[in-house]
Amino acid sequence: MELKPTKPLSGFIELTPLQQRCFDCCAARMLDVLRVAGFSYLDLPAIERAEVLTDKDNWDEIETQMFLFQKGDTKMGLRYDGTVGLSRYVAGHLNDLTFPFRASQFSKRYRGERAQRGRYREFYQMDMDIMGIEKMSINYDAEIISVIQRALNSVSNFIGENCVRIGSRPFWDALFDYLGLNAEQKKQVFILIDKRDKIGDQEFANWLNETLKDEKLENEIKSVFTKGCDNFMNKNSNLDAAIRELKEFMELLKQMGVKNAEIDLSITRGLAYYTGIVFEFKLLSYPEFGTAAGGGRYENLASKFSKTKIVGTGAAIGFSRIFVALMDAGKIDLSQFENPIVAAVLPMGDSSVPFAASVVNTLRDENITTVAYLDAEKKFKNQIEYADKIMAKFSIIIGEDEVKSKLLTVKNMATGEQQKLTVADAVKLLKTA
Amino acid sequence: MELKPTKPLSGFIELTPLQQRCFDCCAARMLDVLRVAGFSYLDLPAIERAEVLTDKDNWDEIETQMFLFQKGDTKMGLRYDGTVGLSRYVAGHLNDLTFPFRASQFSKRYRGERAQRGRYREFYQMDMDIMGIEKMSINYDAEIISVIQRALNSVSNFIGENCVRIGSRPFWDALFDYLGLNAEQKKQVFILIDKRDKIGDQEFANWLNETLKDEKLENEIKSVFTKGCDNFMNKNSNLDAAIRELKEFMELLKQMGVKNAEIDLSITRGLAYYTGIVFEFKLLSYPEFGTAAGGGRYENLASKFSKTKIVGTGAAIGFSRIFVALMDAGKIDLSQFENPIVAAVLPMGDSSVPFAASVVNTLRDENITTVAYLDAEKKFKNQIEYADKIMAKFSIIIGEDEVKSKLLTVKNMATGEQQKLTVADAVKLLKTA
Repeated sequence: MELKPTKPLSGFIELTPLQQRCFDCCAARMLDVLRVAGFSYLDLPAIERAEVLTDKDNWDEIETQMFLFQKGDTKMGLRYDGTVGLSRYVAGHLNDLTFPFRASQFSKRYRGERAQRGRYREFYQMDMDIMGIEKMSINYDAEIISVIQRALNSVSNFIGENCVRIGSRPFWDALFDYLGLNAEQKKQVFILIDKRDKIGDQEFANWLNETLKDEKLENEIKSVFTKGCDNFMNKNSNLDAAIRELKEFMELLKQMGVKNAEIDLSITRGLAYYTGIVFEFKLLSYPEFGTAAGGGRYENLASKFSKTKIVGTGAAIGFSRIFVALMDAGKIDLSQFENPIVAAVLPMGDSSVPFAASVVNTLRDENITTVAYLDAEKKFKNQIEYADKIMAKFSIIIGEDEVKSKLLTVKNMATGEQQKLTVADAVKLLKTA
Repeated sequence: MELKPTKPLSGFIELTPLQQRCFDCCAARMLDVLRVAGFSYLDLPAIERAEVLTDKDNWDEIETQMFLFQKGDTKMGLRYDGTVGLSRYVAGHLNDLTFPFRASQFSKRYRGERAQRGRYREFYQMDMDIMGIEKMSINYDAEIISVIQRALNSVSNFIGENCVRIGSRPFWDALFDYLGLNAEQKKQVFILIDKRDKIGDQEFANWLNETLKDEKLENEIKSVFTKGCDNFMNKNSNLDAAIRELKEFMELLKQMGVKNAEIDLSITRGLAYYTGIVFEFKLLSYPEFGTAAGGGRYENLASKFSKTKIVGTGAAIGFSRIFVALMDAGKIDLSQFENPIVAAVLPMGDSSVPFAASVVNTLRDENITTVAYLDAEKKFKNQIEYADKIMAKFSIIIGEDEVKSKLLTVKNMATGEQQKLTVADAVKLLKTA
């Protein structure tokens, strides 16, 4: 019989137990930041109706990237982000939720695109959203940014410091209106601005020329990136309002204790549903890993599910993107996760198993991470080798003598030091390990 | 525009934030029991190659219940259990792992079958497995049972006590051989025994008669359930060995501190890969909810992936099955999860927001779950109503006076009592809340 492949499908992540412990530790710390910030954790289905996933208003590219399938008469697919399910959920529970409603999610997302380096087909994102009915203060946008920074800071010993760049959709909308662009030009220029970071100044200029064929317009747009938005003050009231909002927002971030924040009008977050302030986080030590988190303000989250206008502000942290990429590149120090096992209990012969099992139970009751080697008829040499390989901090050797005397032989695996201890004294020693 | 449905697909679970907090709390406690018992947590892909999922040796019914789909040339599908991925993973990492290797999983599984009451198409199972190469002591089977009971006991304040029934595959194999059944009869009778719990004594007898058409054979098999296995001692050595193993195993469970364990030879765990001791847990208070956990010994886990013989013992806890069913039936007391928010900070006007934000940061730094109402221009009435609705334990009201004096107005939402406190004193008060 031919053996089947043991590698996962390309684009799917499989961590070692060591990496997994670090991944889980970071997720737990960050989720705890969200919990303490009052976000309600939601665990929504990974499968949605196709009609829920594929909205014609959405970016076409997203659709082709989806895992879609049919079961019976029902077309369905795997979610590609956290927003689609959240909007359905909130629209369906308008009367059960208190607004502003803070929601967090941490779940797998799926994209069917061909796997590339650093692009996964199954990956975790951590989402947080604050939603309200009809209207919400821009203060919440600042809070989201503050909470993301707190979450990233909670694992800064692994990923270092972060910075956030702030953009404004209203600024571009007002500028395009002021410059008199038509709808198609607006869309095309917007796509270009979104890509500017990747394609570089020169290509940006070329494409801009291709799109607008009007040097004066092109120069006005390019000047945003050289002279900043101040250049467009006192042109009209919409532009003034957008620029003032952005500047006041930066001041608010400072007052909220957000560090390393700066305006960057090239941040637009694509053609998605954002309508106000938008932002992207990067890791200061690893800018080459790209966006660590991004989000912004939306004005009508659930229009396809409800006539009630749900506004809000939200963001997703590219959790797998950050942690798997950094671990794969050897950038994360995993040493503290290397030996989670405190005690390896080694019974010498099956007659020692009952007492050994009671010792194991006692240690586990005391929250001491303990395994037992229960092929008790194996030689001492095999057993101690096992304790060594799993990097247990202590071995507890239980033979006939120990069963009789109820005194355990406790061996410190780092120093080789061995001592006879009562179970109670062993617990005391191991608790400090 | 027609609005899209806000309900999830049938068979998919969606909890309220309150239910979710209970669900997550129970999962965390149980996973902690597994961690302390030295199990390495694995988070494997939810999507596997179709050839990995659909083994011809498997039960046909399983195949039709799968979510299978194609992306490019690759046929793939969603996992229906934790074992298929685990066996692939372990076979692919034989040299990276130390055996016996303890693995735990807690992940979503998918079954495409038509949704029925209590049957989900997406659900969580919590798996634990101990695997070895070639040979492993039956002591590990006892450990798995002990660890499951510890895990279930860790949430006994929600689900009550549990019991475990133990069956033996070798007993039936030896009995069928002793009775001289042919291969097809063995398979058919085995399926019947597995279904006996559901179909009842009379239907079992009828079907048995249909299958065997031999009163003497039928009576021998039925006598297992009336007279127990002792009746078959001293017939032949295989039967003797199987019966002795089972009895010694029960003794071992007792020595390991397992409670409420009894022999039940109708436990067979279907036609799956089990080869030795098999077992099923039920909840003593809710037997009507069926199997809470089940598992057993397997002799060759990864034969389709590796020539190395991986033996082991493992089990799955039907996590969603237990908790969602009990919550839906109103059997779980959720009161302790009702008010997770300790402090609601209410700034009176945008000029109070910066100081309010600094208070929020301080409280969150102190691990006090805190939200802020940041539509600061809204009236006091709206803000306090919000604090009331989310069942915050305290409101912290910050107006002009508080900003100037740096003294917070702290209101106990249960008693209505209000006091002026420094931030430091407020932290002290809220920490004890």
